[in-house]
Amino acid sequence: MKDTLKTIRETKPLIHHITNWVTIYECANMTRAFGALPVMAHAPEECADMTKISSALVLNIGTLTSEIIDSMLLSAAAANEKKIPVVLDAVGVGATKFRDEMAAKILGSVHIDIIKGNYSEIAKLAGENEETKGVEATSINADPEKVAKAFAKAESCIVVMTGKEDIISDGNRTFIVKNGHELMGSIVGTGCMAASIIGSFASVNPDYCDAAKDALCYFGVAGELAAAKSNGPGSFKVYLYDEVFNLSDEKVKSMRNVEER
Amino acid sequence: MKDTLKTIRETKPLIHHITNWVTIYECANMTRAFGALPVMAHAPEECADMTKISSALVLNIGTLTSEIIDSMLLSAAAANEKKIPVVLDAVGVGATKFRDEMAAKILGSVHIDIIKGNYSEIAKLAGENEETKGVEATSINADPEKVAKAFAKAESCIVVMTGKEDIISDGNRTFIVKNGHELMGSIVGTGCMAASIIGSFASVNPDYCDAAKDALCYFGVAGELAAAKSNGPGSFKVYLYDEVFNLSDEKVKSMRNVEER
Amino acid sequence: MKDTLKTIRETKPLIHHITNWVTIYECANMTRAFGALPVMAHAPEECADMTKISSALVLNIGTLTSEIIDSMLLSAAAANEKKIPVVLDAVGVGATKFRDEMAAKILGSVHIDIIKGNYSEIAKLAGENEETKGVEATSINADPEKVAKAFAKAESCIVVMTGKEDIISDGNRTFIVKNGHELMGSIVGTGCMAASIIGSFASVNPDYCDAAKDALCYFGVAGELAAAKSNGPGSFKVYLYDEVFNLSDEKVKSMRNVEER
Repeated sequence: MKDTLKTIRETKPLIHHITNWVTIYECANMTRAFGALPVMAHAPEECADMTKISSALVLNIGTLTSEIIDSMLLSAAAANEKKIPVVLDAVGVGATKFRDEMAAKILGSVHIDIIKGNYSEIAKLAGENEETKGVEATSINADPEKVAKAFAKAESCIVVMTGKEDIISDGNRTFIVKNGHELMGSIVGTGCMAASIIGSFASVNPDYCDAAKDALCYFGVAGELAAAKSNGPGSFKVYLYDEVFNLSDEKVKSMRNVEER
Repeated sequence: MKDTLKTIRETKPLIHHITNWVTIYECANMTRAFGALPVMAHAPEECADMTKISSALVLNIGTLTSEIIDSMLLSAAAANEKKIPVVLDAVGVGATKFRDEMAAKILGSVHIDIIKGNYSEIAKLAGENEETKGVEATSINADPEKVAKAFAKAESCIVVMTGKEDIISDGNRTFIVKNGHELMGSIVGTGCMAASIIGSFASVNPDYCDAAKDALCYFGVAGELAAAKSNGPGSFKVYLYDEVFNLSDEKVKSMRNVEER
Repeated sequence: MKDTLKTIRETKPLIHHITNWVTIYECANMTRAFGALPVMAHAPEECADMTKISSALVLNIGTLTSEIIDSMLLSAAAANEKKIPVVLDAVGVGATKFRDEMAAKILGSVHIDIIKGNYSEIAKLAGENEETKGVEATSINADPEKVAKAFAKAESCIVVMTGKEDIISDGNRTFIVKNGHELMGSIVGTGCMAASIIGSFASVNPDYCDAAKDALCYFGVAGELAAAKSNGPGSFKVYLYDEVFNLSDEKVKSMRNVEER
């Protein structure tokens, strides 16, 4: 495992987000806690210019509109040209026809380097016949590892399926990250934060599969450490930020819980 | 009193919000802390579809635009058709002509099941001649209980007036909820959170007057418990989330402070 | 030094914000913690009306769009006419051409009473040839005090440059505020909060240079007190709100660290 956290803190990569209005602060704040620099900019007049000075682009369709999707396409095209990683957090895919169509439009128009979602969102994106309840993780009927692997191959990208265990696949290698704690699901935004962290890690590690896997380990370890001190979602969020801030590559090396399949 | 909290945690109802950009995260996070599933979606292309898979709709005009109002009308019509409860938080009514007009437009176009506001907002909505200072609760000249009761009757809905004491009326029954703590007013968003909680309770209790009254008891009890440990608004917000998460129907039964008039 | 905090808490001025979607909650919540009343309203149909009942206007271009800029111009014109202070937080100026143009459009169309930014943002606004990395404070080549002083003279306004040391100038008087703590930079939004606090102080103190200087002292003192108890950005933010809430004019008088040059 590389000393990615050290690299992020030394190089302070700029992570451009076009994201949802619910967790936008938490995404920015968590990016900062890891040592990277968040920037949020969605105006069509400037979004591509902002991407051009950034080291990664994180897209999240949680509160999408057709105008926001247009801005995402402008920025993703700029990111593709600059060859910086583009992360798509497919929030709520499967919940409405509009979300499904807009996600398909993104995947059909630009190259996404890392597609992230919960089990049902990724299954739906991959064409499996699954139901989504709002924007929440649910179990799926299909074998999630097979779905991740096949979808990664089909899209020539990294697929990240988050849940009790996180699955990361590039179509050949598949990792299962078992770090994390159920309290992470007790607050809104940990999924969105994970996309920001993946973007931050991928901005300094050209092996995006490795970067995504590491990002979830680091975040999961911080979650475990925070949960041990917490009495509920209020104190958990406070400790989560403190633990991320005080995380080190060494600490994560000793606590990571990853399996390669 | 029903074991509503237990029911929410077991059934995890989806609570669709079209709300303001200031407290959107806190509304989602508090909904989650109570055990329901928040979803925020305002695009006109999908908002009605999202309502159709939800168990309640919460509207909040805190940072309204005419486009957002149009989406609210689409979603409220879908909610009316599906017969799920619609909560309107009339934030800032009385502060500008535009707010007054848009609130009137909503009330004239769709059926709102529960109208919530502070004393001056409800008085203004009800046609009383009152002044609002920005979006803040202020005392009013009229008798608030009479205003609530008459307005509930006129609109065939539940009226919730929040303040030092909360007034809930269906036009016949009127409840006064005395739970709560002044520190709840020291942070931004507790009023908006209350609307989310009312929506969550009404999603599993067809007696909306009872649901609204219970929601404010539960939230008020959590506020009292949190305040006892707090040194200011920072720690209060942390404890508030922890206390909500650790709340039980039994705890609230022993601490509720409600009067029926 | 005036007892400005006491005055804010007694008069509860309404502070109208048209701001970014990232830190909008934190701006509102910090305004409240100081004792003022925040209101956020950006619809073109009502923004000027909201300004007319307010005591200060705070503009922040962090997630600007051309529509938001139009609303800012409407509100700033209303504020100019009412002679209430207008604060502009020039977030990200220098990062994209669009931001530079929009900031120039604001400065060319309405009178800004207090222009705030980090060293590189103000230098860029003032026509210095500097580079901005996203929306983050960076050191500049020019002498920051000279830049602040000259720019304040040119624009007939107060210039606030924030950084390790804050510089406040009206073109004649220049203050250096040394209060504050590096943990303030570990969370997103302290810069935006500072603009809200400056607006709150200027709403009750017609000497805007004095108000801006005081605002940064008060906030910096709270930051120092909070930092002494914190283990990272999570706990720091909690303590920061508690310390602001428990601040007094006397406490700040004994801890302020300001130099006049």
